[in-house]
Amino acid sequence: MSSSQFHTSAKASNLAKLDASKLQITKNTSPKQPLPNDQLVFGQTFTDHMLQIKWNDKEGWASPQIIPYGPLSLDPSACVFHYAFELFEGLKAYRDSNDQIRMFRPDKNMIRMNNSADRIVLPTFDGEELIKSIGELIKLDKHLIPKDKGYSLYIRPTLIGTAAGLGVGTPSEALLYVITSPVGPYYSTGFKAVRLEATDYATRAWPGGVGDKKLGANYAPCIKPQLEAASRGYQQNLWLFGEEKTITEVGTMNVFFVFKNSTTGKKELVTAPLDGTILPGVTRDSILELARERLDPNEWEINERYTTIYEVAEKSKKGELIEAFGAGTAAVVSPIKEIGYNGEDINVPLVEGEQFGELTNTVAQWISKIQYGDEEYKNWSRVVADLN
Amino acid sequence: MSSSQFHTSAKASNLAKLDASKLQITKNTSPKQPLPNDQLVFGQTFTDHMLQIKWNDKEGWASPQIIPYGPLSLDPSACVFHYAFELFEGLKAYRDSNDQIRMFRPDKNMIRMNNSADRIVLPTFDGEELIKSIGELIKLDKHLIPKDKGYSLYIRPTLIGTAAGLGVGTPSEALLYVITSPVGPYYSTGFKAVRLEATDYATRAWPGGVGDKKLGANYAPCIKPQLEAASRGYQQNLWLFGEEKTITEVGTMNVFFVFKNSTTGKKELVTAPLDGTILPGVTRDSILELARERLDPNEWEINERYTTIYEVAEKSKKGELIEAFGAGTAAVVSPIKEIGYNGEDINVPLVEGEQFGELTNTVAQWISKIQYGDEEYKNWSRVVADLN
Repeated sequence: MSSSQFHTSAKASNLAKLDASKLQITKNTSPKQPLPNDQLVFGQTFTDHMLQIKWNDKEGWASPQIIPYGPLSLDPSACVFHYAFELFEGLKAYRDSNDQIRMFRPDKNMIRMNNSADRIVLPTFDGEELIKSIGELIKLDKHLIPKDKGYSLYIRPTLIGTAAGLGVGTPSEALLYVITSPVGPYYSTGFKAVRLEATDYATRAWPGGVGDKKLGANYAPCIKPQLEAASRGYQQNLWLFGEEKTITEVGTMNVFFVFKNSTTGKKELVTAPLDGTILPGVTRDSILELARERLDPNEWEINERYTTIYEVAEKSKKGELIEAFGAGTAAVVSPIKEIGYNGEDINVPLVEGEQFGELTNTVAQWISKIQYGDEEYKNWSRVVADLN
Repeated sequence: MSSSQFHTSAKASNLAKLDASKLQITKNTSPKQPLPNDQLVFGQTFTDHMLQIKWNDKEGWASPQIIPYGPLSLDPSACVFHYAFELFEGLKAYRDSNDQIRMFRPDKNMIRMNNSADRIVLPTFDGEELIKSIGELIKLDKHLIPKDKGYSLYIRPTLIGTAAGLGVGTPSEALLYVITSPVGPYYSTGFKAVRLEATDYATRAWPGGVGDKKLGANYAPCIKPQLEAASRGYQQNLWLFGEEKTITEVGTMNVFFVFKNSTTGKKELVTAPLDGTILPGVTRDSILELARERLDPNEWEINERYTTIYEVAEKSKKGELIEAFGAGTAAVVSPIKEIGYNGEDINVPLVEGEQFGELTNTVAQWISKIQYGDEEYKNWSRVVADLN
């Protein structure tokens, strides 16, 4: 499905645009003390403030409001509860060695968030204005942003339809809000390679579906296959598609494989192409770009192409499966050590005595250095607040 | 995907079960006056009370509570806002000529609601206990249940995951709630046949997906194709699947076709089989059962089989397309008069001077009589409250 087939009429241009300069702040009068770094659990504790921006189809975007973190009050008939008018983004802010706060490629998240919104007829907005507003939110909660490598502030922009009424139609009211959560490294003791179970009895996404959008709708149906995998001792599931058993994603991450041709010695980094069923991950995109720039083309091919569980199994038997890893914002990369399919486990090599493959580790370092501002690369790591 | 492939461990049996006998009532002290029947808009006004039943994974189901209709207060990180942990049902209560309130086959909705819950790891429950609790809700708001044929009380049971926290996993807390809305006939002036646009650039559901569950996730992605259809003058879209362009559903309803073999004169009533991509509609099921019982088998075949847009177009050319209608709780049946595909319109005959086909009208009468208690059929119309 090409996006050009969806050309609903442009929103009335006299509606107010999202405007960060109109930001209003109501401070939380009982600020939290930061938790010790070793007590941070992903997405379980939140900062003192949240950002809220209301929208309706008569006036457009209201003034952004920073208010104390607290519950949302919504009519029980609100369309977010019934028809999944909801989407989100996940990105992180990092404290660099100069106490500047940096966001990693937030423009990519804003583009994807607008694409998600457009697909389910929620309002779109100027992403740069939201980034500016998020910068103000971060500044206000700066005492809660963890220091040290591996720690960061997870940022969750969320857009929901809030209009009351049970008719299935275009939401006339919406709420964009942003909450933030101080988080530690995904694996508290360095990498921990995972075992995957390949899933072919349930399907995450389909051509003409919404698998390439970050909609809430894509997530709840994923839990049961993950529980199934866990019940058999696998940490995550690997999504297969169709009769060819094409490999698409792992759990809620993109997935990469490294193959090595035993005849030519040439290596190949492979991930699924963005065909409409694959989430266009920011980490995925970053890995592809850095790999194309930094890996020696005499030794490497970087390919966005389909691979199948059969090809992976066959390559494994021939000793041509070298590495595999998931890629996403939460873990950056997540090494894979085994894939179960049809009662057999495909073994994925790791560096002797380590929980990762060689390229997996290299890629993680590349990205981490840019995220924490130890290395400048294009404008990927963007200073959004200065704590000095 | 057979459901047996999902055999997650049974919920701990020491958790409290949903128990209608524990119902507690807090009355609304400012009861509403009923709106005149001609001002009722589907799902826009609600009654004085709502039913709420909380659940958590430590204690199970709490006591059902009837409380004044009012907003829900939820943490902004609640999983219903991010990962679409939400599902619902739609059914109606009818006031019969003896002022008894009847629900139409509520057991079917309870089975489907539990199937939906199981698929996204929300808690299941004893449907009969929920039906009893809904009966009490209805009694309390009896002054708002509209009289007259075509009018009814729309009932919306909803189940959402309420646990706070951004980790993607099994919700540890949930809320089952029921709101009710007095509604009029779907078409205020009798039937109005609709024009459909066949959609093949977007896909509603797929094998291994969740199209047979009443999840919020299935609804938001449907709006854009409907807007697309509307922009070209069609009231609804008709969902096609795959390269064969199989006809699956219409908008948010099941769809039926009536064909007539011009050689043998035999007629056929056709709807898509329940293959996992089709919502198992209660109206669909009722139509099939009544048609199998009441239509003369010498004249009729009743088939749950695949049909395609090509077959419908071909049958239309040969004069063998007799009728088509959508079927669902809101409208019971919704006659179809035209289907646009690939720039051409397939004409569907109507009874001369009317907005319906002959069988369409017959089926609507069959079901309406049972719903309003004018005819007893098995235990389909169940008295749940007596207003005398």
